[in-house]
Amino acid sequence: MPVKTIEWTNNALHIIDQTLLPETYQVITLDALEDVWQAIKSLQVRGAPAIGVCAAFGVLVGLREANPKSRDEAVAAAQNAIDHLATSRPTAVNLFWALNRMKKRVDSLPPDASPESCAQILEQEANEIFEEDRQLCRDMGRHGAELIADGSGVLTHCNAGGLATSDYGTALAVMYAAQEQGRNFNVYADETRPLLQGARLTAWELDQSGIDVTVICDNMAAHVMREGKIQLVLVGSDRIAANGDAANKIGTYGVALLAKAHDIPFYVVAPSTTFDMSVPDGTHIPIELRDPAEITHGFGKQTVPDQVKVYNPAFDVTPAELIHGIVTEEGILRPPYTEAIARHIAPKIGTREADLI
Amino acid sequence: MPVKTIEWTNNALHIIDQTLLPETYQVITLDALEDVWQAIKSLQVRGAPAIGVCAAFGVLVGLREANPKSRDEAVAAAQNAIDHLATSRPTAVNLFWALNRMKKRVDSLPPDASPESCAQILEQEANEIFEEDRQLCRDMGRHGAELIADGSGVLTHCNAGGLATSDYGTALAVMYAAQEQGRNFNVYADETRPLLQGARLTAWELDQSGIDVTVICDNMAAHVMREGKIQLVLVGSDRIAANGDAANKIGTYGVALLAKAHDIPFYVVAPSTTFDMSVPDGTHIPIELRDPAEITHGFGKQTVPDQVKVYNPAFDVTPAELIHGIVTEEGILRPPYTEAIARHIAPKIGTREADLI
Repeated sequence: MPVKTIEWTNNALHIIDQTLLPETYQVITLDALEDVWQAIKSLQVRGAPAIGVCAAFGVLVGLREANPKSRDEAVAAAQNAIDHLATSRPTAVNLFWALNRMKKRVDSLPPDASPESCAQILEQEANEIFEEDRQLCRDMGRHGAELIADGSGVLTHCNAGGLATSDYGTALAVMYAAQEQGRNFNVYADETRPLLQGARLTAWELDQSGIDVTVICDNMAAHVMREGKIQLVLVGSDRIAANGDAANKIGTYGVALLAKAHDIPFYVVAPSTTFDMSVPDGTHIPIELRDPAEITHGFGKQTVPDQVKVYNPAFDVTPAELIHGIVTEEGILRPPYTEAIARHIAPKIGTREADLI
Repeated sequence: MPVKTIEWTNNALHIIDQTLLPETYQVITLDALEDVWQAIKSLQVRGAPAIGVCAAFGVLVGLREANPKSRDEAVAAAQNAIDHLATSRPTAVNLFWALNRMKKRVDSLPPDASPESCAQILEQEANEIFEEDRQLCRDMGRHGAELIADGSGVLTHCNAGGLATSDYGTALAVMYAAQEQGRNFNVYADETRPLLQGARLTAWELDQSGIDVTVICDNMAAHVMREGKIQLVLVGSDRIAANGDAANKIGTYGVALLAKAHDIPFYVVAPSTTFDMSVPDGTHIPIELRDPAEITHGFGKQTVPDQVKVYNPAFDVTPAELIHGIVTEEGILRPPYTEAIARHIAPKIGTREADLI
């Protein structure tokens, strides 16, 4: 990907403001902790991995803003930033994972560290999270690329791409890897109401990379499948339970049901940081309800009458039995997922479930 | 319904401009044949029955505009209007049905009729089409009302309401009838991209009538079903084949698949004028492809990057096996539909298939 979704340079956090795409490509600098919180909340930065990376750097922003004069002030400022950023979005587990990593490093700061040295140590941790995310993207792409047959059509929902991570993305990393291997295929991108991440972001980044992409409205997916245009569905995930149930952008569950009805394989692509072993199944994943205005005034014009009720869940849960495989940096997990996840993922992520914020 | 979607008064055709709803309620007068054609094409008037009624009155508009001096000039003007209006939208069979009725009356105009008497005869026919449509709505509502249980949730897609007909609508006529019978229920209206007829029109007219309505994005239907909020799906149709396959607004087929996956009964509500015996099954129904700008610039804001491809089919076909019943003015048809349609519908609509324009 030529674009850098998140960049930490010269002690400052820069992100692409994704709410302005595709009309405007603009990089903004987040100088204050509140700016970072707002950027995550308002989806200027979005996508579970990117949120995690942004939050990790956000701790540094909070630290610099507080300008601590002692180790204790540095710890208090970093802890305050962690606590505040954890309230920005409830569903993406990567947010909590990244903040927990930062918290562990805060808790282990040497007793005699200077404020500058505290900042350096935390910056190193955030950079590691960032670099690890880049490597995860490449590894997922490599493992998943085989799924895309030459000449096939691939449907995706929302944006699980470079804009959702530090690098190649998750679902889209598989496409970029297949492209690098010289395979020809075309992608149908659900526009993904209400915020149109598919139309605005997935279409934009695939087009930038020279991948053949066609935008459809969410409600056209079934018809396109029936027309025989889709041979594979690839989506990302914001949180995967211990049994393989996967939360992702609202509409993903419906796509999975439609894929099943048309005998089209449905794959989730997500790094191990997306798995939450503290959640036995999808019924325990909190579903964020967002502002009705995203639906009623989403296009710059009122599209729902005044006073009419609106329901706006931001995510849904696709049950494990609809998922053909979960592409991770460790390889492709296959059902039964409870065993596969316990064997390949749980040891890797360790006791993370015990220390979720 | 308090609102009059289409009205013919003082020798002029008045319609609600549905493209302006819900922000603006405006009745416009269609003075010229080209205005009527544009109103149908641009969806100022939409919904299969309403299109048919509007086209019937549109023949009168064309006739008056031509200001014929003889019977032959009147016949030529009416025939010209019929031929032109038939090109406005390809999928809705009611358009052709209504125009064929007008054409039959044109063909049987007395040889010695004055231009004024020609206009009177054709006006009478258009008024009959209008009144019959009103009666059809009431009859469908009466037959279907039993389907809505007290306390239940009903999902609908697009707008099959008063705004789509001369009166109570088709799918929504069932809701209005259930309301009149004192039943309590709530409706989830899919917003129905790209033109948002569900959010703009269905929500508007149900709210006006005091029916509890909640707007959701199309991709939320599966999640709402899984949450147990839906006990019934009611949709309209633009054309039904002899085997029961039903064309309707894009997304309907997907809703039918989702309903099946959640064991929710899925009913189509449509008058006999919607059946097309010349079409053995859904594969023969033409699917209108509409302007990509409806998706890329739908509501005053660009939402797809420049040069990215867009696919915009306006309809899809729900196969008969996903349909629990078809509510018509004759009663509820049940599978096997080929037999039910041949017995109850074909005799009523006669040889219409032989003289489609």
